Amino acid sequence: MSYSKELLRILESVGAKEGSRLSVMTEGGTYVGTMMPHHDFSAPDIIVLKMKSGYNIGIRIDGRSRIEVLEEPVSKIYKEKEVEPKKGLPNLVLLGTGGTIASYVDYRTGAVHPALSTSDMVNAVPEIRDIANIRAKVLFSIFSENMDVHHWQELAEAVAKEINDGADGVIIPHGTDTMGYTAAALSFMLGDITKPVVLVGAQRSSDRPSSDASSNLMACARFCTQANRAGVFVVMHDTPGDDSFAVHTGSRVRKMHTSRRDAFRSMNVVPIAHIDDKGKITINTEGRAVTNDRATAKTDMEKAVILLQYYPGMDPELFEDVVTKSRGVVISGSGLGHVNENMIPLIKKAVAKGTIVVMTSQCLNGQTNMNVYNTGRDLLKAGVISVFDMLPETAYVKLMWVLANSEDRDEAERLMRTPLAGEMSQRRTIDV
Amino acid sequence: MSYSKELLRILESVGAKEGSRLSVMTEGGTYVGTMMPHHDFSAPDIIVLKMKSGYNIGIRIDGRSRIEVLEEPVSKIYKEKEVEPKKGLPNLVLLGTGGTIASYVDYRTGAVHPALSTSDMVNAVPEIRDIANIRAKVLFSIFSENMDVHHWQELAEAVAKEINDGADGVIIPHGTDTMGYTAAALSFMLGDITKPVVLVGAQRSSDRPSSDASSNLMACARFCTQANRAGVFVVMHDTPGDDSFAVHTGSRVRKMHTSRRDAFRSMNVVPIAHIDDKGKITINTEGRAVTNDRATAKTDMEKAVILLQYYPGMDPELFEDVVTKSRGVVISGSGLGHVNENMIPLIKKAVAKGTIVVMTSQCLNGQTNMNVYNTGRDLLKAGVISVFDMLPETAYVKLMWVLANSEDRDEAERLMRTPLAGEMSQRRTIDV
Repeated sequence: MSYSKELLRILESVGAKEGSRLSVMTEGGTYVGTMMPHHDFSAPDIIVLKMKSGYNIGIRIDGRSRIEVLEEPVSKIYKEKEVEPKKGLPNLVLLGTGGTIASYVDYRTGAVHPALSTSDMVNAVPEIRDIANIRAKVLFSIFSENMDVHHWQELAEAVAKEINDGADGVIIPHGTDTMGYTAAALSFMLGDITKPVVLVGAQRSSDRPSSDASSNLMACARFCTQANRAGVFVVMHDTPGDDSFAVHTGSRVRKMHTSRRDAFRSMNVVPIAHIDDKGKITINTEGRAVTNDRATAKTDMEKAVILLQYYPGMDPELFEDVVTKSRGVVISGSGLGHVNENMIPLIKKAVAKGTIVVMTSQCLNGQTNMNVYNTGRDLLKAGVISVFDMLPETAYVKLMWVLANSEDRDEAERLMRTPLAGEMSQRRTIDV
Repeated sequence: MSYSKELLRILESVGAKEGSRLSVMTEGGTYVGTMMPHHDFSAPDIIVLKMKSGYNIGIRIDGRSRIEVLEEPVSKIYKEKEVEPKKGLPNLVLLGTGGTIASYVDYRTGAVHPALSTSDMVNAVPEIRDIANIRAKVLFSIFSENMDVHHWQELAEAVAKEINDGADGVIIPHGTDTMGYTAAALSFMLGDITKPVVLVGAQRSSDRPSSDASSNLMACARFCTQANRAGVFVVMHDTPGDDSFAVHTGSRVRKMHTSRRDAFRSMNVVPIAHIDDKGKITINTEGRAVTNDRATAKTDMEKAVILLQYYPGMDPELFEDVVTKSRGVVISGSGLGHVNENMIPLIKKAVAKGTIVVMTSQCLNGQTNMNVYNTGRDLLKAGVISVFDMLPETAYVKLMWVLANSEDRDEAERLMRTPLAGEMSQRRTIDV
C-alpha cells in the first residue's frame, strides 16, 4: 500500500518529504516530528511521524488537516577520524557488534539502523581520549536479537586475541535485547580472563538528544582503566539520569525494562561497582585483579539446548519431541522450581534418554529449592538439576557450554551445580 | 535407599524419631531442627533436619557426631469449629484451593501438605469474625503448580454462584506458584464481576511462626468489606514485614521472588490499594464500585495455546510442530518485542495456517513497540499482534479465553488489542 492520491497531492503541495520536520494540525491535536517513509501496513491516508521521544505515531490526514514543513531533511554523514595513540595511557579496544548504541535513525527507511561505525562512537565522546587510547573495530553490525551462538564464539575469540595482543581492556558495544545472554556466554567462554571485558549498550540511538550511548561508553572506559578488575561485565545506567552507572557481573544481569535507560539489573546480587558522573568508582564486591596472563577462549557450545517457561496447562505431549530431541533442557519453573505433575513423566523420559534437565525459577529473584514441596522432590527424583539462584537465561547459556566442555554426563551435572563465573551463589548447606 | 545400619543404631540409641526436635553436633557445627523422614535420594549416612527457617539441611552422621533429642514429635490436630453468623456483618465466602496458605508441615512425610481445612484458616484469625461472617468451602486441595484450565473454570463458576447466592465478596486462598495465572483467568472469565474476588496466598506455611497466612487473610477481609471495589484482585504482603499489604489487579500481577513474603508485584501499574496493619486502606486508582447485579462466568477456554520465551539460538525447525499445531502462540520476545530473523518465516507460516501469534516482552516491565526496529516491523508484517504492556503470562491466559469467546479471527485479534480486564494500558496514539 502507498499513500492515497489525495494525500500525495497534499504532501507535494507543501513540499513534505521523508526526513522533513513537520508540524501537523488535525482535529485531534498538533504533532511535531520527522516524517517517516510510508509503511506497507499503514492505511493510505496515514502519515507517520517520529516524535522527539523517538517513537513513531501515525496520523490520519484529511481535507481539514494542515501540514507545515518546519525543516528540510538533513543527511547525516559520519567521518572516520584517525587519532595518534598517546604514550602512557592504557590501551582499550572497542569491538562493535551493532545495536542501538551504534545506530542512528535512517530517514530513507524510517528505521533505526545499526550502521554507525565504532570509531564514530568514540569520536562522539572526545573526553574518552584523555583516559585511554582506543582502537575500534567492527565485528558485526546486527541487532542483538539476531546474535547467535556463532557470534558469541567469534566475539570471544576476538576478545582473547585483543588481550593477548596487548589490550588493557575490551569494550563491546552491543544491542540491549540479548546483551545479557551474550555477557553470560562470554563469561563461560573466557573463564578466568585477565582483563576487563565490558559489554555496553544504549536504549536511545546516538542521534537522539536523550541518548545514553556516550555516557555509558565513558563509564565503561573509566571502569576498564581505573577499577583493576578482571572479568566479563555489563555497564549501563543505574538510574534514569546520567548521574550513576552500574557495573554488573556478566552472568547475573537481565534486561528488566523494554525502554528505560536503567533497564539492566543485577539479579540476586548487587552490582559489582557503581560509577558516578564525575568518574568516581565505588567497588561493592571483591573480585579478581587484572594480571598479564594470557587469555584463552573455550568457545565450544552444544546447540541442542532449549529454554522453556513452565505455565499451567503446558501439554507434555505437545512438547515431547522438543524436549526429548534436546541434549539439554532448562526449565523456567514456577516458584521454588516446579512444573505440574503431568510434566514429570516427560522429564523422566528425557533424563533416561540422556538429556540434562535443569530447573530455574520464572520468579527470577530468589533461588530454587526443590526439597520444600513434593513436586520439587519428585522432580529431583526424576533427575532434574536444581541450580539455586542462577537466572534461566544464564542456565541456558551455561548448559550449552557445559555440554560441550565436559567429558561425560556426571561431569556436566557437576559443572552445572558449581559456580564457574559468578553465576550462582555457593550453597552453604548440603541440600538433599 | 534407607538409613545405614550404623545410623539406625545411633538414632535408636538416643530415641530420635521423625518429627523429633534434635540438636546435632558434627565437625562442621551444631544444627538444631526437626528430623524429617529419610529421602530415597539421600545417602544412607545422612539425616535431614528442617531448620527454623523452614528449609531442610542434610547432615552426614559418623561415629564422632552427637545427636540429642530436645523435644518429642508433636502431632497437630486441627478441629473444625461452627460459628453462628452475626447480623449486620457482610458475608464473605472462602473458597479453598490449596497451597502454602492452607498447608502445614506433615512430619510423617517431611513435606509441606495442602491439607489444612479452609475453616481452620479462618479460625487461625479470630479477629476476622469481627468484621465479616465467613463461610468456608474447600474446592480443591492442590499445590498451585497443578492448577489447570479446568480448575480455573470450576473456580470461576463457584465464585459466580456464591455471589449470586448473596456473598459480599469471595476470598480464594491459593498456592503462590501460579496465583498470577489464576488471577488473570478469573479476570477474563468473570468480566464485570460485581463484588470483590480476592486471591490470597502465603509464602510460609501456617504452622511456622513467620507465616504470612493470617495477616494476608485479614488484609483480604478488610479490603473485601471496606473498599467498595468490584473486580478480581490479589492481596499479599507489600513489604517483608507485617505492616503493609498491596492489592493488585488480577491481570497485572506476577510472582517476582521465590520466597520473600512481598514476592508479588504489580507490573506496569501501581497496586490499586495498600492496607496497613491497623486496617487503614489507601486507594491508589479508580475502579468499579460494588453493585448487586448478577455475576456470570464465561469459562470457555481454548487449550491449544502455548507460551514461548524467545532466546538466541532458538531453532525454528525444532519448534515448528509445537507452533503450527497451536491455535494461539504467545511469544515472550526480547526487548520491545523481537525474535531473531530465522523465526520469522515460521511465524508467517503459523499465521497463514490460522494461528494467532501475540508478542509480549521478556523484560516484563515496559511495553512492546514493534515500529522502532526492522525486526518489529517484519513481525507486524508477518501478522504478529503486539500487546503493549500486557504480561506474557496474562497474554497466554487471555489468548485462551479470547479464542474460545470470539466469533472469528478478526474479533479475536481485536479483543487481544483491547483492554478487557485492566490487563493493558489504553494506547494514546495510533500505532502503525
